[in-house]
Amino acid sequence: MSLSDFAIIESTLREGEQFVNAFFTTEQKIRLATMLDAFGIEYLELTSPLASPRSREDCATIAGLGLNAKILTHTRCCLEDARVAVATGVDGVDVVIGTSSKLRAFSHGRSIDDIVRCAREVLPFLKDSGVETRFSTEDSLRSDPDDLFRVYEAVDEVGVDRVGIADTIGIGTPRRIYELVSALRARVRADIEFHGHNDAGCAIANSHAALEAGATHVDTSVLGIGERNGITPLGGFIARMAAGDPERVRRKYRLNLLLPIDQAVADLVGVDVPFNNYVTGFCAFTHKAGIHAKAVLNDPSTYEALRPEDFGLTRYVHVAHRLTGWNAVRNRAEQLGLELTEAQLRERTARIKSEADQRPLTLDQVDALLHAAAESPELAEVAP
Amino acid sequence: MSLSDFAIIESTLREGEQFVNAFFTTEQKIRLATMLDAFGIEYLELTSPLASPRSREDCATIAGLGLNAKILTHTRCCLEDARVAVATGVDGVDVVIGTSSKLRAFSHGRSIDDIVRCAREVLPFLKDSGVETRFSTEDSLRSDPDDLFRVYEAVDEVGVDRVGIADTIGIGTPRRIYELVSALRARVRADIEFHGHNDAGCAIANSHAALEAGATHVDTSVLGIGERNGITPLGGFIARMAAGDPERVRRKYRLNLLLPIDQAVADLVGVDVPFNNYVTGFCAFTHKAGIHAKAVLNDPSTYEALRPEDFGLTRYVHVAHRLTGWNAVRNRAEQLGLELTEAQLRERTARIKSEADQRPLTLDQVDALLHAAAESPELAEVAP
Repeated sequence: MSLSDFAIIESTLREGEQFVNAFFTTEQKIRLATMLDAFGIEYLELTSPLASPRSREDCATIAGLGLNAKILTHTRCCLEDARVAVATGVDGVDVVIGTSSKLRAFSHGRSIDDIVRCAREVLPFLKDSGVETRFSTEDSLRSDPDDLFRVYEAVDEVGVDRVGIADTIGIGTPRRIYELVSALRARVRADIEFHGHNDAGCAIANSHAALEAGATHVDTSVLGIGERNGITPLGGFIARMAAGDPERVRRKYRLNLLLPIDQAVADLVGVDVPFNNYVTGFCAFTHKAGIHAKAVLNDPSTYEALRPEDFGLTRYVHVAHRLTGWNAVRNRAEQLGLELTEAQLRERTARIKSEADQRPLTLDQVDALLHAAAESPELAEVAP
Repeated sequence: MSLSDFAIIESTLREGEQFVNAFFTTEQKIRLATMLDAFGIEYLELTSPLASPRSREDCATIAGLGLNAKILTHTRCCLEDARVAVATGVDGVDVVIGTSSKLRAFSHGRSIDDIVRCAREVLPFLKDSGVETRFSTEDSLRSDPDDLFRVYEAVDEVGVDRVGIADTIGIGTPRRIYELVSALRARVRADIEFHGHNDAGCAIANSHAALEAGATHVDTSVLGIGERNGITPLGGFIARMAAGDPERVRRKYRLNLLLPIDQAVADLVGVDVPFNNYVTGFCAFTHKAGIHAKAVLNDPSTYEALRPEDFGLTRYVHVAHRLTGWNAVRNRAEQLGLELTEAQLRERTARIKSEADQRPLTLDQVDALLHAAAESPELAEVAP
């Protein structure tokens, strides 16, 4: 299935600020915004100017940087907030309101009629102010579909640029997201944005399913940081898109900036990049079992959906362990410039396995075993 | 959509051993097997007894522990390997062979006819030996569907207990997995197992899609450890299933063991549990933005797909930051036993936001601000 074009709304400076550890100074926000812009993301979303005095100043500061990315901020659905947002000079305003019965009961307490009335007041004001407009519901998956579509159709009539679906609590599955976005696609002419939390591990797949169903914009944050365990991670989303259409992703984004971006955010919020992080985790391009190593040495694409070199990274074939195979051992001997016979290599492989069965083995120790074989040709006669 | 019953094939002691950092001693394997058995997983898969002498002994040792979980091991499709596997005393043998043109060219070099012939030799031997049998292809998604189905139908005829689909390089999307498993479901009477790598972030969603399409067994490993960045993580899969059907998941598994299991494996392989790990990451049940905090304090399910108490965990509402709101501040004042008026609380909230705008604020500092207000009632008169 070929997906239509998509844009990333990078929300590290909005959703990401809702990560429990996050505190970004103005200077840090400028640095992140600049890096993300260089990476090539299409939109940057910033914390609501209503959140605090500094948040408001920062919107104006980042809107004034002259980045290629469009600068968005985020507000509740009310005219006073919208006025403050526009005054910061941002390119677009993302309006959000909860439509689920839970949010209507336990959060803002407004009816669907109220929501529609308010959207019809706020959106025309924003359009008249010349900013790009988005209207999103919150907790969309636990909202009554009739309520949802009534609201979306109302804002579409007013001419909103983009409508948003939010899986606010992370319960969505790709099937449900596909169905909801498809139904919405058939009802509105506006672009469609998807925002998905990752509590149940489906945020990346849900974002992809939304695009399959006709969505145009996906929200991400670096390392996925946000409320609770966060949202669709930028790097994971890029990995998913690159696994499907590497050419397009290489064309759109400067992929070698992903590692410094992941590292910068990890440092700023005081966490480590997860060991198994998409693309930039330390094990992302490691190969261990003998049959994997053999095939990867023949042709990396045998066991790689992504090319490490696209991200300025390299693969690592692990040799020093009990699951190793003689093809991997041969490759290591070649790297060391040693000429060993097949019999020698098979004997050394059995020896490596048996030593690695007793304790963790280092590459140094493997190298010593290989050097010893090169210096003692009689090993060539020993059966493995 | 209600999913039929499912079983977990926990492969930390097979796929997990292929994680670049993994080295498990016999004692450590026994400890992990015992913990996973207590958690309630239905199957434990162990490294092939052909991998090394110790791997072979460990199969026999763990098969002899008398656990409730069925013990499986993993071999290539050949009679000699199958004989060794059966001799260890395991309950079942998982046979695997690559059917993609890449694996046939760069790995084992065998034709589809060869594969079918070999399966017809190995599976009857295993059945006669009284073990549960599984036949899986490798790199199933890059295999010609005609080849795949020919192989699966052949092994189904021989009476295999379970056929396996493997997304070996992690390129699958839920849509493709659903289509492939559905097509297979219509062709074989055997159970269907799904094994999915997570390079592109879809392993959990793909496992769920496989179940939706009629699969019965899902492979997991603790923290997802395996080749490259690994496979479907046990905790993430549990989170996904619990978000859909919490009652069933609570009935099937001892969920409060998930945290010690994740921690044990992290310690053994020398990594940290990722900060944003499903359920057990430190931020999984944290709430920060004012509107989230307010609603969660009213009713946690407003912003939680999973209940922390089901896992023996607790939620944390973060108060000391610029995105805070007065409902969260009021809750904190109540926790401290302070009686503040709404005017005082709103003034303190504005003060907390403005201080947190300058620098990270600790809970201690917030508490001091609240105590100061309780001791200086005149603050009640100050407008925010």
